[in-house]
Amino acid sequence: MNEATVIVSFEGNGAKRRVVEETLGDVCRLVFLPDLTAEERGKALSNADALIANNLRVELRSDEFRQLQGVKVIQLLTAGVDHAPFSSLPAEIPVAYVPGAFADAMAEHAVAMALAAAKRLFVEDQNMRQGQFNQFTMNRKLAGGTCAIIGFGGAGRATARLLRCIGMKIHAVNRSGRTPEPVDFIGTTADLEQVLRPADLIVITLALTKNTIGLIGSRELACLKEDAILVNISRGEIVDEGALYKHLRNNPLFTACIEAWWIEPVRHGEFRTNYPFLELPNVIAAPHNSASVPGASVRAVRLGAENVRRVLLGEPSSSLVNDEERLL
Amino acid sequence: MNEATVIVSFEGNGAKRRVVEETLGDVCRLVFLPDLTAEERGKALSNADALIANNLRVELRSDEFRQLQGVKVIQLLTAGVDHAPFSSLPAEIPVAYVPGAFADAMAEHAVAMALAAAKRLFVEDQNMRQGQFNQFTMNRKLAGGTCAIIGFGGAGRATARLLRCIGMKIHAVNRSGRTPEPVDFIGTTADLEQVLRPADLIVITLALTKNTIGLIGSRELACLKEDAILVNISRGEIVDEGALYKHLRNNPLFTACIEAWWIEPVRHGEFRTNYPFLELPNVIAAPHNSASVPGASVRAVRLGAENVRRVLLGEPSSSLVNDEERLL
Repeated sequence: MNEATVIVSFEGNGAKRRVVEETLGDVCRLVFLPDLTAEERGKALSNADALIANNLRVELRSDEFRQLQGVKVIQLLTAGVDHAPFSSLPAEIPVAYVPGAFADAMAEHAVAMALAAAKRLFVEDQNMRQGQFNQFTMNRKLAGGTCAIIGFGGAGRATARLLRCIGMKIHAVNRSGRTPEPVDFIGTTADLEQVLRPADLIVITLALTKNTIGLIGSRELACLKEDAILVNISRGEIVDEGALYKHLRNNPLFTACIEAWWIEPVRHGEFRTNYPFLELPNVIAAPHNSASVPGASVRAVRLGAENVRRVLLGEPSSSLVNDEERLL
Repeated sequence: MNEATVIVSFEGNGAKRRVVEETLGDVCRLVFLPDLTAEERGKALSNADALIANNLRVELRSDEFRQLQGVKVIQLLTAGVDHAPFSSLPAEIPVAYVPGAFADAMAEHAVAMALAAAKRLFVEDQNMRQGQFNQFTMNRKLAGGTCAIIGFGGAGRATARLLRCIGMKIHAVNRSGRTPEPVDFIGTTADLEQVLRPADLIVITLALTKNTIGLIGSRELACLKEDAILVNISRGEIVDEGALYKHLRNNPLFTACIEAWWIEPVRHGEFRTNYPFLELPNVIAAPHNSASVPGASVRAVRLGAENVRRVLLGEPSSSLVNDEERLL
């Protein structure tokens, strides 16, 4: 029996390599792509049974994608996979993602930004540094309010758990309109307006696909409460950039907490906005860093390697990217 | 039978007056002090059976305190009562406070500031506005960490509930060393160092008394983890101001979230610090505004009026200020 070969293409530190070796060392030969010469790379990729990658566009040259014909799975190590070069990959190769590794950290970040907006932390910190002590300007409790969670995967459900503890009602939207998670309402995007209208807080966590691009446009923003708080920890493109900017300009009581941007370094090689969001006082800006907590990326490697192990042993792969997500 | 007289000394809006009337109108005559002339005030205070006040120093002249000889209770509408003029009040008059009206809002504010520090919200928002997109600088999860809660009354316990949901271990300190609340450790100030050493987050919620002034000084700060987050939502004086400033200067990874200051408008007529905290990047500053959420002050009036009703009906008063708190 031929021993399977698994290629690891990310530039891993020691801990990540060790996790791959611990998880897969007994069922395959591991090849770390960054260690190979240019000639060795081609041969290794052509013989690979699986590939574990963090960012395919960075780790493989575009002419190398077609050499992956023989792999049983391409295992990515992120929750969002829209930056993968699906149009250049052989269509029949399953691509898997890692759903849960970053969910808790993302949820904490979403709640952190929502609370910062509700409590006016940025506004009043700035006022104090300018000599104003506005003790009796009202801020808001999240408890008793309603949160719309758009996208109800790992990060959405983890966010719901925290906000339920705080005392918010949870109105969620996902593809199926069903969830085992306790919620006050669950629906699909067909229910979007009904979910947005009463929301004090809106958290966007859904995957970027051709069906979700621009899901929140000027019509949806117009449904929101005047003083709603919008948190995006998913992908900028789900929200219409120009419409959001205009809404922020016209509604000073509305706050946008933007962690996921439209043009970002990892996906586009640079950070840039088409509207001057960073000049607005009602924007809280974060550099898509909610997953950057100690241990999370190593945990993602472990979960990804465990899935590759299942595939090599002939068991079904978990968390495969579906056709809708590949058609972006 | 003589009808009892209850004086209401705060400048209440309609909603607050209505709540007092609803709660007490059938058991006493209500006199709203701001409506009276100078002569009428003296007579009303001398005949009063109870006084409901928000800030005694502001609402009564100091020569009026001695006219309160006959009252059965002075009902304050705040959780912290250290600003009351106890040395000028007849020592035998019970003074009651309102323990729970602001606890949930204070807890949300404490968690908001702690999360803002852990997630580097201020640092990275500022970096982005200066053109830096630090996606991979590590921030921290609160989940899995340990929180020391110093003072375990209404606000402390409400904070513990939120942080337990997030996944923190709770090590609390109160006067008795006992609590019905689920905690991982409960002790007294004798256990302070043991509680401070492993803490990732320290939340100060205890009352200011002669025993708690300066409780957190340079020795206690030296016990803390290098990157600990300290949140004070109680009274500035619990922390040694100079020691905290020095600790912040010497430990750039340490963050202080200061909502309760040493010299504040309500208690001292002005806001002032003796050290330039507001020039430091590792300070998150809030203007003692955690209780300023819609409905909370009306709820405090209702709870206070309900307590006065109990006293008028001969039932025991709840939440009386004890001697330790009166001896400040």
